[in-house]
Formats: sequence, C-alpha cells, structure tokens
Amino acid sequence: MVQQERARVTRENIMLGAADVIRRVGYANATLGDIGEAAGVTKGALYFHFQSKEDIARALIDEQHATTRAAAIEIIESGGPAVELMMRLCADLVVRLIDDPIVRAGIRLTTDSSTFDAPIQDPYKDWMTTFEQLAAQAAGAGETRARVEPAILARFIIPAFTGVQLVSETFSERKDLLERVHEMWQVLLAAIVPPDTLDDWFEAADRIFIVHATAVR
Amino acid sequence: MVQQERARVTRENIMLGAADVIRRVGYANATLGDIGEAAGVTKGALYFHFQSKEDIARALIDEQHATTRAAAIEIIESGGPAVELMMRLCADLVVRLIDDPIVRAGIRLTTDSSTFDAPIQDPYKDWMTTFEQLAAQAAGAGETRARVEPAILARFIIPAFTGVQLVSETFSERKDLLERVHEMWQVLLAAIVPPDTLDDWFEAADRIFIVHATAVR
Repeated sequence: MVQQERARVTRENIMLGAADVIRRVGYANATLGDIGEAAGVTKGALYFHFQSKEDIARALIDEQHATTRAAAIEIIESGGPAVELMMRLCADLVVRLIDDPIVRAGIRLTTDSSTFDAPIQDPYKDWMTTFEQLAAQAAGAGETRARVEPAILARFIIPAFTGVQLVSETFSERKDLLERVHEMWQVLLAAIVPPDTLDDWFEAADRIFIVHATAVR
Repeated sequence: MVQQERARVTRENIMLGAADVIRRVGYANATLGDIGEAAGVTKGALYFHFQSKEDIARALIDEQHATTRAAAIEIIESGGPAVELMMRLCADLVVRLIDDPIVRAGIRLTTDSSTFDAPIQDPYKDWMTTFEQLAAQAAGAGETRARVEPAILARFIIPAFTGVQLVSETFSERKDLLERVHEMWQVLLAAIVPPDTLDDWFEAADRIFIVHATAVR
C-alpha cells in the first residue's frame, strides 16, 4: 500500500513537472529529460509510468478533463436557473485555468494544433453536450427567448470560450481572463434573455464573476 | 529586373513550401530541410532569403496579416451599414482561411502558443481596433442597441472568431467554418440589434454567408 501511494505521488509529480516544462518551452520543445528533471525523478521512474512524451500529454489532457468535468457535475447538481449554471461553469473553469497547473497544461495541449497527429475532439464534444442540455433547459423554463436554438448556442459558447482564454493567454497570461469571460457573458445574455430581464441577469453575472474574482486574487 | 523577379518568385515559393510543411507536421516539427524540399529550392537559396525558421514564420504571419488587412480595407471602403461590414469582414476571412495557404499558415502560427517565445499580439489588436470602430459606427447610426459597449463587443468578437476557427479546424479541417461563423453571427445579432430589426438582419446574414458559401465550394 505504501508502495502504491508512492507510485501515485511519483506519477503526479511527473505530470506536474511536465505541466511546468510545457508552460515554459511548449510541448514540441519539451524533452523527457527536462520533464524528469522538473519532476525530480529518474528516467527509469519516468519510463515506469509513461511510455513516451505523447503518453504524458494524453494523461494531462485526461486528468484536466476529469477534474473540470467533476467540478461541472457538482455545480450542475447544486441547482439553480440553467443560465446561471452556464455562467458558473465558465467562471469555475476560469479559476482552474489560472490556479491549476494540470488544467492549464491540459487545455493548452488540447488547443495547440501541433500537439498530436489526430486532433483532440472529445473534450469539446462533452462541453457542447452539457451546454446544449442547459440551454434547452433554460429555453424550456422561459429564462431565454426562442431566437437562438440551444444547439447553435452550445456550438458557439464552447469555441468562443476557447478563443477568449487563448487570446487572454496571449495578452496577459490569463490575468484578464475572468474580466474577458464576464464580458463574453454580457454579450451572450443580451442575445438570449428577454430584454425586460436583462438588468437582473447582468447583476447575476456581476455576482458570479466578481465573487470568483475575489477567489482568484 | 529579371533577377529581382526571380528572387521574388523564389521567396514566395519558400513561403508556400513552409506553409505546406507547417500544415502537415506543425511548426515545431518543421525543419529548414523539409521547407527547402517542399519549395524546390536549395539550402543556399533558402538562406539567401531567410535567416532561420522563425524568420520564415514571421514572414508568413506578416504576409497573412497584410493580405487580410488589405481585403478588410477594401470591404470597409465599399460602404454599407457597419453591422453588415463586420459580417462581411468575417466571411471574407473565412474564405481566405479555407482557400489561401499563406493565410491558413499565418493564422495557425499566430494561435499556436508554442510558436514563439513572445506571443504575437499585434494582429489581434489591429482587428479589435477595426471592429471597435465599426461597432461604434453601428451604435451611432442606431443599427445596434446601447446595452453592449463597442469596446466590449470588439474585445469579444475577435477572440470568439479565433476560437470558432480553431475548433472548426479540429472538427472538420475548417469545412464547417462558414456555417459556424454564420451561427456565431446569429448569436451576435440577437445580442446587438433592436429586436424588431432582427429578422431583417438574420436575412442579411443569410445572404452574406450563403453568397460566400457559394464562392468557397
């Protein structure tokens, strides 16, 4: 049991080391030697856990996706209006993109088109499905107007968020990300909620993105 | 003069060769040897024009940006309602992202975070400035409602487009990009135009994105 626990810790250290190296030099330039060094493990230990650099990258994407999906399920199960849940899911992912090195590395590996031969599609699909369900729920409850179909909204929100975090990384290393996602939701709310409820929804957005802002800073 | 013309053609061939290699293997994996081979030029000729791989990458980004900005100026000078101009700018960039290998490579190099040590910000800034001006013009002309500020809209549209094209590349190698950008504009129109004009604007979007669709296919 002690040995199993030690192996788990070593594996986690390798992934944190890889996340750090990828953040500094990019995936393509990262070597297994750099990763081992950053993780403080021997090459033997590294090869015990992972067969290749791509193997580590896939593990980072899987762990990032598992972490963020688990958090999403918790948020959805806590209940509330579906529009509010969509905003809280975005705010939660922002906080993780800033604070959690594994999430940061996993998202970067997913969006960097040069990472793998076959592009990574599944994480996008999972989020689109979740947001389509929530958008349909919001429409059913009359929180939103009928003009924008749930599927269209979901197919837009996930890529839009992807681009907003990417450009925020480019401009400020994500320091302005929460503010940018808050603004994204001001545009989205203006598109989807009935005009006479827009002020209330803007206030809800302020609460969600400013409460989270406090958690981040 | 003949020699100058020959040098220009060689330079263009090197850039097209580089665009092709980058599309196939990614920037990080591309070698100067591969690029010379794809361009059908000797290493000597290659080094006469470019000092390094990064030098070629920056030339691709510069040419992509110059091409798309020149097209943008032409569209803006052709006149029309500012909201329509913003849609036409997006549709034009979609067509170039599908048809023009230099534009495709330049955009990919700009969004791939591992390409350079210092991230590329200027192209994003130029587009944000253009869209902020058009959004302000649209607000001034009463085409849009006052709820979403021009600066907020511009700071969202450019990253959103960036993400939509990135995810479309991941899912369909951009085959569905025009459709996805059309949907993006359905959401944006619902956010910005007065409700009683939304049907007319949806029709305008259909015309712009379906005319361009014909040009693409």
